[in-house]
Amino acid sequence: MPSEHRLTRRVQFYETDAAGIVHFSWFFRYMEEAEHALWRAAGLSIHPGNSEIGWPRVAASFEFKRPLRFEDEFEVHLRIAEITRRTIRYTCLLAQGEATVATGELTVACVRRVPGEPLKSIEIPPEIAARFQVAAGAQ
Amino acid sequence: MPSEHRLTRRVQFYETDAAGIVHFSWFFRYMEEAEHALWRAAGLSIHPGNSEIGWPRVAASFEFKRPLRFEDEFEVHLRIAEITRRTIRYTCLLAQGEATVATGELTVACVRRVPGEPLKSIEIPPEIAARFQVAAGAQ
Amino acid sequence: MPSEHRLTRRVQFYETDAAGIVHFSWFFRYMEEAEHALWRAAGLSIHPGNSEIGWPRVAASFEFKRPLRFEDEFEVHLRIAEITRRTIRYTCLLAQGEATVATGELTVACVRRVPGEPLKSIEIPPEIAARFQVAAGAQ
Amino acid sequence: MPSEHRLTRRVQFYETDAAGIVHFSWFFRYMEEAEHALWRAAGLSIHPGNSEIGWPRVAASFEFKRPLRFEDEFEVHLRIAEITRRTIRYTCLLAQGEATVATGELTVACVRRVPGEPLKSIEIPPEIAARFQVAAGAQ
Repeated sequence: MPSEHRLTRRVQFYETDAAGIVHFSWFFRYMEEAEHALWRAAGLSIHPGNSEIGWPRVAASFEFKRPLRFEDEFEVHLRIAEITRRTIRYTCLLAQGEATVATGELTVACVRRVPGEPLKSIEIPPEIAARFQVAAGAQ
Repeated sequence: MPSEHRLTRRVQFYETDAAGIVHFSWFFRYMEEAEHALWRAAGLSIHPGNSEIGWPRVAASFEFKRPLRFEDEFEVHLRIAEITRRTIRYTCLLAQGEATVATGELTVACVRRVPGEPLKSIEIPPEIAARFQVAAGAQ
Repeated sequence: MPSEHRLTRRVQFYETDAAGIVHFSWFFRYMEEAEHALWRAAGLSIHPGNSEIGWPRVAASFEFKRPLRFEDEFEVHLRIAEITRRTIRYTCLLAQGEATVATGELTVACVRRVPGEPLKSIEIPPEIAARFQVAAGAQ
Repeated sequence: MPSEHRLTRRVQFYETDAAGIVHFSWFFRYMEEAEHALWRAAGLSIHPGNSEIGWPRVAASFEFKRPLRFEDEFEVHLRIAEITRRTIRYTCLLAQGEATVATGELTVACVRRVPGEPLKSIEIPPEIAARFQVAAGAQ
């Protein structure tokens, strides 16, 4: 029952912008990469081929402390901060060694996806909820 | 002295993901497109070729209400919510007609960029601050 | 029966990289934007919501002549060079005024997409083929 | 003196599109990731912080054989096919096990970048050329 995940990542050239640093939109993708790796570590895929269940993002935020540059290595540390009946909330720390690069938060909701219909919020299936737990001390 | 900007945008195919909707990281790019269009409307570029002044993002957030799909048209409405000595804070509404798609917020800081040195926070130059004003009623 | 399409586009900040120019992967997206706009001009969507028919890319290429920079305006001129029973081949010119920025080519194939099965090449449905024609002089 | 590089990569969710497969523009980024990893393996960075030398892309192409889907693992195999006085040409194979996913080619040119001036083609500095060699059998 994982409650957190760490991954190490290197900045790719196409992630940088004309200011010479990683474009801020990429931090949200880094956070999501860690989320999907956490799901794999829990023995799941967040988007299995033929599933009707989906996990659209309800809210996402970042505070940016230090820029990242081409070829920088950094760590993404994602923790499960809260599990409700219909949502999961993660907190995220990007760091280079001891230095905080950015802190983020992501809330996702469980929905049923039926082609041609609006997304419908549902309760998290118990077989999925049973695979995760809230990280100690996470807020 | 503009205080807000509206742009109309169509969803491109490469902005969608395997869930059939726009990937959430794109909403942050839509918000930034409106920011840069606001600057052009104010007679400025946020990234002129040889300037030492830059505007890194300090914080960014979105709450997502409805998905966008391929070829959907939507409106991005960006407003200046606050101007401090060193930062600008925008609020953003994405909408399709009367329906809210998402609401966001973006805070940017004025810095001096010197090659090989860390970014250094500076006060917003008066000739830039003079081009903008806070939008009535924005929070 | 359109045979070509022109669109005018401005470089967005997130399309640039740390070399200060548009990352080359974006040229392929610009070309595709013009393709989808051509289809809309023909009264079609290349990816309607519930269709089993898809148009995966078979080949794509670009030769790059001049860089594009943040906020540059440029034109994308897409032409239909060839229509076979199962494929469409486009040629593409990116230009700033009289100056050629890049020239590209894109070949797409008509397939049937069935969930859980490999993509299957099919003949272009006559109601789609009837909407397009090869551009005069295109190669 | 490396002449080729292999890397293993997993498809990220934001690389997929509404057709449920990796958007073709990503293949060019995968190829470039392998190029930059090859340079690191040669003890170089293709974009060191304060260098005036740059490597803009002159031509890039791909032929696509099989789609990639979310979480697929695949291999990128990049080889140096030709080194001239001013350019390097790579060939690239994307594969899943024995199956070819795509084959690509990339030509890059050595330039001097001076702020405010056009890119200027130059000869590859000998200390860079000495780090690479053409792969046996590459075309």
